[in-house]
Amino acid sequence: MSLERVGIVGAGLIGTSIGLALARRGERALLVDVDGDRATTAAALGAGDAGEWAALAACTHVVVAAPPGPTAEVVDQVLRLALTATVSDVCSTKTHVLVEVETLNREMSSRFCGGHPIAGRERGGPGAAQSELFDGAAWVVCPLPGSSAEARADAEELARRCGARTAVVDAATHDAVLAAVSHAPQVVASALAARLAAAGPHAPALAGQGFRDTTRLAESDPDLWAAIARGNAGPLAVELHALAAVLSGVAEALNRGDGTPVADLVRAGRAGRAALPGKAAAPRPSWTRVGVVLPDRPGELGRLLAAAGQAGVNVEDLSIEHAPDHPVGYVDLDVRPEAVDQLLKALAAAGWAAHRSS
Amino acid sequence: MSLERVGIVGAGLIGTSIGLALARRGERALLVDVDGDRATTAAALGAGDAGEWAALAACTHVVVAAPPGPTAEVVDQVLRLALTATVSDVCSTKTHVLVEVETLNREMSSRFCGGHPIAGRERGGPGAAQSELFDGAAWVVCPLPGSSAEARADAEELARRCGARTAVVDAATHDAVLAAVSHAPQVVASALAARLAAAGPHAPALAGQGFRDTTRLAESDPDLWAAIARGNAGPLAVELHALAAVLSGVAEALNRGDGTPVADLVRAGRAGRAALPGKAAAPRPSWTRVGVVLPDRPGELGRLLAAAGQAGVNVEDLSIEHAPDHPVGYVDLDVRPEAVDQLLKALAAAGWAAHRSS
Repeated sequence: MSLERVGIVGAGLIGTSIGLALARRGERALLVDVDGDRATTAAALGAGDAGEWAALAACTHVVVAAPPGPTAEVVDQVLRLALTATVSDVCSTKTHVLVEVETLNREMSSRFCGGHPIAGRERGGPGAAQSELFDGAAWVVCPLPGSSAEARADAEELARRCGARTAVVDAATHDAVLAAVSHAPQVVASALAARLAAAGPHAPALAGQGFRDTTRLAESDPDLWAAIARGNAGPLAVELHALAAVLSGVAEALNRGDGTPVADLVRAGRAGRAALPGKAAAPRPSWTRVGVVLPDRPGELGRLLAAAGQAGVNVEDLSIEHAPDHPVGYVDLDVRPEAVDQLLKALAAAGWAAHRSS
Repeated sequence: MSLERVGIVGAGLIGTSIGLALARRGERALLVDVDGDRATTAAALGAGDAGEWAALAACTHVVVAAPPGPTAEVVDQVLRLALTATVSDVCSTKTHVLVEVETLNREMSSRFCGGHPIAGRERGGPGAAQSELFDGAAWVVCPLPGSSAEARADAEELARRCGARTAVVDAATHDAVLAAVSHAPQVVASALAARLAAAGPHAPALAGQGFRDTTRLAESDPDLWAAIARGNAGPLAVELHALAAVLSGVAEALNRGDGTPVADLVRAGRAGRAALPGKAAAPRPSWTRVGVVLPDRPGELGRLLAAAGQAGVNVEDLSIEHAPDHPVGYVDLDVRPEAVDQLLKALAAAGWAAHRSS
């Protein structure tokens, strides 16, 4: 196993989080960044030891956690410096990185295997890092056709040590899927949020919770997303054209007075949501929702959930409704249906105004 | 003031919630529904008294909370039955209701004034109703040109008694704004979720939190949304065509290798998000995020928030990350920046693994 001495190039959100995840296991990574302050910050956060570029030569595995643009170039430089190390990356687009690495350095590229942890935050930088960032997340491993067994094994092992589930997927499939589940949603969220200005002065006040959820991604970093979009231009363009065709088709049907395509689309969307794995995908109807009024002062939410816990009820999910200009908040608790009566009784006894709301 | 005796036609989510909101003030509404069981259920929930259609004749104000399709027809019938009552509705599209009411019954239409509370849930029916549904929400009041001062005043007063903020907006503006902030986001969320099937077998496992948030609305009711889309066909078609043009434009730029339109769009989207009012719009950067690992068992979230409350720290928002196939959960707490140190100290003392994450 050659993860004995791991080097991390790029002490941003992802690189620092990898260092923190390894540190959780008692492993100390070497942190290198073109901006030495970032490496020092990451080290101070406990993500490993800050070091110089030349120190990478002694590493057995180096993960390049650079922005999408320079990733392949940095991988090439690392391959030439750390002559016995395997190398991986974390770039959210894969074909262009793999092609570039092969183009730059075909003879050494067998020591490289691509990777992409599906985890992130709207904020970047080492200060946003979390040792748990990858826990339970998917981490795609994308080998080159010529990647060595050792390079593949090391890329997978790194993902596992960070707490992620690995999925070996070829680069073209990865890029097409990510265009659909990540890159297009980002563009669409931004497009919807950007339409707010065109919708006139009344629009912000009339935007409800649905608009806020659908546009949450719109708070992301413009330059990072331009780089990701350029790096996955082909598949993303295909996806955006497909979505544009769907929206235009619905618009044309509506202009003919035909609402059937909307009903069909909403039905297809429900099927898509139901295909999502894990807890969040467990069809929401399998939980029952209990709504509770929440005075907007410290500790109320804690007191509420403590009451639920004391009643032996596990809260599967919760969402807070923010009521602007109103001193009262409102929270929805999702619980298993068989726990509802117990919860309502316990909350009533503790003085909460609570209702079964689904 | 003629809200002395309020009648509610339609004991679904919205009608029952209006009844509950009035009951909170000690006012008992008359509940009428073509399905008498629904009216009885609503009454049992405390939303007022179930009654017969004919009893509406004695009401001073009747709010029609029917589905979009039959709304205008029901308004007409109520105007002809309750000859001294003012009448309003709650339909989420306005021009077609107002035009139909004037067409059906121009001579009595001065007693009508349109309305639309911007509040709802993915689930419908009286059981989903909440007395707090409208608290702090916007409630658009859309008069006809010929609506009497009394009809307008009653529509506004009903909204206020339900806890909402009123906004008087003409029907055309309302419909254009709602197309942008509600109807188009619904169609887009469904379109994104529907693309999951086309994205192949790996797609569900590689969909992250961003996809889940952006497609939450996709769980809505297909038939209700087909009716809303038909009722606002023109403005929604304009909005969908505009979005399709934006997506196609970005796709074409990407095919030319140009990422600038993506950066510009993400920037415009951030400006749109920043224009949203209220707490959720307070630019997130004004809160600091603290991440905490959460064992997946009853009471842990309560214990965590109790610790925050005991430290005197108000949690402004929180979000739970679901880690599929993993026994550990993860929660982000958003708090005021000046409270972070206090919170981290208190959580550490109570044994939580917590990090400043923004």
